[in-house]
Amino acid sequence: MPLAVADIDTPAVLIDLDIVEANIRRLQERLDGFGVANRPHIKTHKIPALAKLQIAAGAVGITCQKLGEAEVFAEAGVADDILLTYNVIGAAKTERLAALVRRLERMAVVLDNETVARGLAEAAVRHDVDIRFLVECDTGFGRTGVQSPQAALDLARAAARLPRMQFEGLMTFPLKLPDTRQFLERALQLFNGAGIPVPVVSGGGTPAVASVGDVPMLTEHRAGTYIYNDVMMVTAGAAGWDDCAMRVRATVVSRPTGSRAILDAGSKVLTWEQHNAQGFGRIVEYPDAVVAGFSEEHGKVDLASCARRPEVGEVVHLIPNHCCAVTNMMDEVYGIRGGRVEAVFPVAARGKVR
Amino acid sequence: MPLAVADIDTPAVLIDLDIVEANIRRLQERLDGFGVANRPHIKTHKIPALAKLQIAAGAVGITCQKLGEAEVFAEAGVADDILLTYNVIGAAKTERLAALVRRLERMAVVLDNETVARGLAEAAVRHDVDIRFLVECDTGFGRTGVQSPQAALDLARAAARLPRMQFEGLMTFPLKLPDTRQFLERALQLFNGAGIPVPVVSGGGTPAVASVGDVPMLTEHRAGTYIYNDVMMVTAGAAGWDDCAMRVRATVVSRPTGSRAILDAGSKVLTWEQHNAQGFGRIVEYPDAVVAGFSEEHGKVDLASCARRPEVGEVVHLIPNHCCAVTNMMDEVYGIRGGRVEAVFPVAARGKVR
Repeated sequence: MPLAVADIDTPAVLIDLDIVEANIRRLQERLDGFGVANRPHIKTHKIPALAKLQIAAGAVGITCQKLGEAEVFAEAGVADDILLTYNVIGAAKTERLAALVRRLERMAVVLDNETVARGLAEAAVRHDVDIRFLVECDTGFGRTGVQSPQAALDLARAAARLPRMQFEGLMTFPLKLPDTRQFLERALQLFNGAGIPVPVVSGGGTPAVASVGDVPMLTEHRAGTYIYNDVMMVTAGAAGWDDCAMRVRATVVSRPTGSRAILDAGSKVLTWEQHNAQGFGRIVEYPDAVVAGFSEEHGKVDLASCARRPEVGEVVHLIPNHCCAVTNMMDEVYGIRGGRVEAVFPVAARGKVR
Repeated sequence: MPLAVADIDTPAVLIDLDIVEANIRRLQERLDGFGVANRPHIKTHKIPALAKLQIAAGAVGITCQKLGEAEVFAEAGVADDILLTYNVIGAAKTERLAALVRRLERMAVVLDNETVARGLAEAAVRHDVDIRFLVECDTGFGRTGVQSPQAALDLARAAARLPRMQFEGLMTFPLKLPDTRQFLERALQLFNGAGIPVPVVSGGGTPAVASVGDVPMLTEHRAGTYIYNDVMMVTAGAAGWDDCAMRVRATVVSRPTGSRAILDAGSKVLTWEQHNAQGFGRIVEYPDAVVAGFSEEHGKVDLASCARRPEVGEVVHLIPNHCCAVTNMMDEVYGIRGGRVEAVFPVAARGKVR
């Protein structure tokens, strides 16, 4: 393991542990202030050691999106309480889910349709376990989730009528105001009218943390990106540059023209996601440079707006547009503090697509 | 290992081996017809067993872009002849390159500036090896490479004056007509006038194969994507749908609205690269569907133009926009033939960014 950051070959992903610890602490305090439980989404880091820091700071459990992630984190003994925010379909997966339910103190899963509910119930019966479920609600994001409060009630009832299925609450992502509050208000009225308790109302998203106080029915919140932050979070006003813990360390390998630099970090490290940012990452040492695009191994940088320009061989550091996507590219990342390498973290749940 | 394709859980990447073999054979025949050596780029598959098929069909060697890829393929005994088409910078990497030079029968490397040349020469001296190099020329792509034929000559001379550095030729990517031919013609005139032989002139790219006959000074060609093909190749007129060997197998996990389907393959499997395609991949079973975007674990599909629409739980297969990017997402892919699984290939050189 290199001892100094200066000894780390490029491209590499650095995680500033001072910033990580401050980000963990700050989010926990904010959610504590709202009286809302903190259930961080581990997709951002995929590293059990960092989830342990989140739990130690007060998180009640973790959120995973794929079974393979939940298995890695359960195996690492990170948390006895995992929420899987994904429709689990097919015998191969429902078997694995049932095994996790048996293993963990508390495991819940999200669903947005009856096909998923039936598959879960069959596995629950086979494995003699109860499966707790939340109904996913589309409160304005336009991805997964039931489309209306009435549909949420209908699905909760239909699923809860199946054997071994226990309704636990509602889940949404992210928070859109006023839509999310109105949807959840109406849903809670309907559930109340039907005499069905709703112990959990779960919101999500890092920029959405600012809105948690405006959605008073939330009992828990799932943020992920806050632990590292990135250009997307800064652009959304959810973080400052000094709150960005992830840096992609890269070398200028070519300066073909006066205004063009080529980095050894391309789309195999960084991401094409843009999210209203200018370009595809911010170069800390050259904030006026524009990362104009990628090949797989090349980052193409436009230096036209830079008074000072890097030479071939110079090492630079980039804040990526979307840190979660970068995490999934790397087999390992370097935990650094004050210019020294404190740990090399295997990205244990990288590539767990199933 | 699942025996039938129908037993493969999703998301997963399938490689049709009949199509792969036909693609390998066809490209080899085309380059043989031009009298140009075939040096396939392994970035597309990153699997030694598939490179062995390319060598067996007549390829003279392979192309790698990162040292880590070359190390994996050298270790697997795939080829005694590797061209590394990347500027190698820094002692950590030049040490590894020198070790490869010592190990392989023939190893050459590309450079486009003197900083790279000096670093290579120092490593060559330390390791008592000769390093063969090609000068990379930017003949219209606007990425790496010297900007003029005169600059190519100047760099070749400067680098060849360094100890243990042996000039072997010129390299470019891709082929742009008439620019590439004009650049190379003028460069060869200059080298000829200076009395410097240019044994190798290396072109690259899969769509560029159609232009190889129009760039008569080429001695070899480096294509990568042709082994799988993808939407980008079909859009470029370089392949038909039946030539696409890679399929992303995915399940419809949600049908939140009449016109929206959500797949369990998102940006952790597929790619945001678009390359003039409509949407982000072609669904074989629903060619009128538009893959409108991704979250990391969700593929969002617009079914508005589809007369027939899939149910929750249905499995579909996608041809990705850019197959090389998908390869780098996967730890393993399934080699299939006629509905049966013939092999599970570890993607041995996945994530080799250094």
